[in-house]
Amino acid sequence: MLIVGERVNASRKAIRAALEKFDAEAIAAEVRMQVAAGAHYIDVNGGTFPGREAEMLCWLVDRAQEVTDLPLCLDTSDPAALAAALPRVRGPRPMVNSINLERDRYARVLQLVLEHKAKVIALAQGEEVPASTTVLKVELASRLVDALVAAGVALDDIYVDPLVFPVATDSGSAQATIGAIGEIMARYPGVHTVCGLTNVSFGLPARKLVNRVFLAGAIAAGMDAAIIDPTDTQLMAVMYGAEAVFGRDEYCMNFLGAFQSGAIS
Amino acid sequence: MLIVGERVNASRKAIRAALEKFDAEAIAAEVRMQVAAGAHYIDVNGGTFPGREAEMLCWLVDRAQEVTDLPLCLDTSDPAALAAALPRVRGPRPMVNSINLERDRYARVLQLVLEHKAKVIALAQGEEVPASTTVLKVELASRLVDALVAAGVALDDIYVDPLVFPVATDSGSAQATIGAIGEIMARYPGVHTVCGLTNVSFGLPARKLVNRVFLAGAIAAGMDAAIIDPTDTQLMAVMYGAEAVFGRDEYCMNFLGAFQSGAIS
Repeated sequence: MLIVGERVNASRKAIRAALEKFDAEAIAAEVRMQVAAGAHYIDVNGGTFPGREAEMLCWLVDRAQEVTDLPLCLDTSDPAALAAALPRVRGPRPMVNSINLERDRYARVLQLVLEHKAKVIALAQGEEVPASTTVLKVELASRLVDALVAAGVALDDIYVDPLVFPVATDSGSAQATIGAIGEIMARYPGVHTVCGLTNVSFGLPARKLVNRVFLAGAIAAGMDAAIIDPTDTQLMAVMYGAEAVFGRDEYCMNFLGAFQSGAIS
Repeated sequence: MLIVGERVNASRKAIRAALEKFDAEAIAAEVRMQVAAGAHYIDVNGGTFPGREAEMLCWLVDRAQEVTDLPLCLDTSDPAALAAALPRVRGPRPMVNSINLERDRYARVLQLVLEHKAKVIALAQGEEVPASTTVLKVELASRLVDALVAAGVALDDIYVDPLVFPVATDSGSAQATIGAIGEIMARYPGVHTVCGLTNVSFGLPARKLVNRVFLAGAIAAGMDAAIIDPTDTQLMAVMYGAEAVFGRDEYCMNFLGAFQSGAIS
């Protein structure tokens, strides 16, 4: 399973504070701990500073690359910030987080993805109401995947995020997401699916437990990437466990390795 | 979700010792703690004493009924033990654990199920090799369910157990079980599915973690009953979490209640 480390995100107070002071060491520490915990990509998000997102994202890209050779996941809904930050990427091909079907954003992000040979997270998100059912999620995802493939993006470079909404307000939300994961993986062999977890538990207590349970169900349904905090040891233990249980870890080798290294107890 | 408390089982050392000494208080304590923890059925298993299973099962039925009004789940592969124990059951309709397609056992257990209006756990287990694929599990389960329904057993009284084998030796085993759960629930609306958990983790370290992950995936697939230890608070927390996450707990009421009572932290 591909792990996108989510900690360098301006929606977190510590990252916002680091951005305000341009505290490079704080960002470096967040990147290093995720590398050590097993992340495969480092997500960088410099949002929440109106008018300065491009500047912040570029600064985060530079800081992250000072301490890791891992590929980055450029996390922004602003094509201008993406256009500014992508040329600064050295090393492995980055991931763009994200593209959706909004007409203007789609065209601009697609152009950047092609130009920089980036991988891309494709959101099952239309221009109108949120897609709350499996049918709607799969329909939106299919339109997006078909368009990306027609434009020359390889299936293997597409990570479909069917999105998940809080179960506290829509009890069928996570089940709809899981259903979409299964259908998308079956419909497009070779494509990937990915999801952030934290939205599912919004409004509930014991949120980390809820997130862990959702991750297990999503892996059971076939999800092969996740945007998570790799330093959350209980979450990572569930990830290793779910990969072993649901047939994604031949001879349970990764699970046994994680146990022997102390990552699972 | 229907919880069958599994602790009164002669395969556990403590229960075997209690049976050897006819220690009624030890059994009473095991029953009481499962009732307090939220069990809906109490499983009683007096196996492992060759030639004395009927005697042991009858004694366990009597002891359990001295301390609870909950229905019992009579757990034996011996039709003679079942025939001896069923007439001692007072109160709510019991569950019989289990029936399968073995010709002689099927006929004798079916007769007892009908005579005592019992619910029954139906194993997806043939006479030959273990059913290790979804297709085979569903085929065996379907033959058994069709036969039981034709004999007059209501779908709502049937709990199909697709069985799960250790993922350490067959990495596709749990996925096959999960797949069977989904297909059986879709094919027979109104039937139930149930599974024991511990087999899945045999041969692995961190077995309780593996069992919890499997439970989450099985609930995501639609399983609505489980044979578990209800005093395992981490397992129960995952059960409450999975029911909330996968749309089986309207407004997350049970989850919130469990949190408020301290069962989830």
